[in-house]
Amino acid sequence: MKTEILFGIHPVYEALKAGRRIFYELYITKDTTSRRLKKTIILAEMKKIPVKKITPSKLKILSGTDTTQRVGAKVSRYPLSGIIEIVNKIKNIAGNPFLLLLDNVVDPHNLGALIRTGTCAGINAVIITRDRSAPPTPAVSKSSAGALEHVYLALVTNMVNTIRFLKQNGLWVIGMDQNAKRSVFETDLSCPVAIVIGGEEKGIRPLVKRQCDYLISIPLFGKVDSLNASVAGGVTMYEVFRQRNINAAGDGSIDWGCET
Amino acid sequence: MKTEILFGIHPVYEALKAGRRIFYELYITKDTTSRRLKKTIILAEMKKIPVKKITPSKLKILSGTDTTQRVGAKVSRYPLSGIIEIVNKIKNIAGNPFLLLLDNVVDPHNLGALIRTGTCAGINAVIITRDRSAPPTPAVSKSSAGALEHVYLALVTNMVNTIRFLKQNGLWVIGMDQNAKRSVFETDLSCPVAIVIGGEEKGIRPLVKRQCDYLISIPLFGKVDSLNASVAGGVTMYEVFRQRNINAAGDGSIDWGCET
Repeated sequence: MKTEILFGIHPVYEALKAGRRIFYELYITKDTTSRRLKKTIILAEMKKIPVKKITPSKLKILSGTDTTQRVGAKVSRYPLSGIIEIVNKIKNIAGNPFLLLLDNVVDPHNLGALIRTGTCAGINAVIITRDRSAPPTPAVSKSSAGALEHVYLALVTNMVNTIRFLKQNGLWVIGMDQNAKRSVFETDLSCPVAIVIGGEEKGIRPLVKRQCDYLISIPLFGKVDSLNASVAGGVTMYEVFRQRNINAAGDGSIDWGCET
Repeated sequence: MKTEILFGIHPVYEALKAGRRIFYELYITKDTTSRRLKKTIILAEMKKIPVKKITPSKLKILSGTDTTQRVGAKVSRYPLSGIIEIVNKIKNIAGNPFLLLLDNVVDPHNLGALIRTGTCAGINAVIITRDRSAPPTPAVSKSSAGALEHVYLALVTNMVNTIRFLKQNGLWVIGMDQNAKRSVFETDLSCPVAIVIGGEEKGIRPLVKRQCDYLISIPLFGKVDSLNASVAGGVTMYEVFRQRNINAAGDGSIDWGCET
């Protein structure tokens, strides 16, 4: 039985709600008046999960971190999805699929932030390169504000083959590359898409880049070279959202009569 | 003579380029083959700024941080702008003004990230509440990847009065509020606007909120409550960019023929 220690109010609460992990024990460090923690304890008790009071230092040792927000849980490992499972799943959704592919995103905070934003923007699943990215650890769940607990996530060994497989299954694979001439705002993202985002330092690997149907960039004003990876991902994923969900007029369709 | 110690390759290089601070000394910790650091040293020498080699521990003590990237500089304090100066400046620019107002953004990393993104998206200036926000320190310059060195930034004592003054000068003041019914994507942002963003924890203060012409939110799918403040700011500021700079068709105007 392989387990891990989730920590932080959002990861624990969202994992309870998602119901995809087995909870062996919930840990709290003291009586609390926090409304969110109370909600978590009530939910755990409804699910007949033992709630244990332990010292803060014990929770720190168990979780390996100081940032537990006084709550943790011994749970089964992160429920990975398979790539075929994901492709089968997106065939049955209403609307066009929207996948997020991450290559070389080695920083757990960036990984968590991208998953958090992606979930808000409506992605159906995340696919990550196994050996070149941060794995979906409890720290990533914390950085994602618990979004990791709900998302379908696959680890793949070979991103190039994965992209070929996605293309065979009708997805358009679009890589973010700051040197690309094509702007995200002038690209049709309403079709079935997989957006590929690279790490802050190195971006997408050249071999992966060559497999993309298109490379796009975010236009930049001014003197600074580039956007932070998680902001760039947010802008792009919300442009997918906008094109799919806002009516055809798109820009400024609610005219509140400003005069210039 | 009040000085501060800038640190990190981007802040030092961008401050040299911007030419708004007096440089008293440039510090490097050893001979280096880094191309970016060499460019910085050449620029400093052209400007006749003394380049001093010091030990890493000395630079750590001077800067108060471990993350110096082996370069620092003793410089004059951050060149603040005045609110009247900013309003006069935006009267003379081509196109409609675009200001960023920050209320309660207490985390220096978020402040730096918002300034970095704002600069990329084309803001003309940043206005910050003096007592309720992180001040523009060297750490903020580092988080902004040096963008702070180029931007016009004013600290104001009273944000409510500032907003009144901006409205008198023709700006539409739009606050971000996750509870607002109006979506950022359905709001006309092409007129002269000041976008108000609150801190991660508390958002915009109620008194400030009441002064806004409109409150807008970013639509959210799924199970997670909210976006990270710097991602939400990025999505909103790039929606201003998109509405102003992308042709009227807006969404998907380059049709590359995807079939759904």
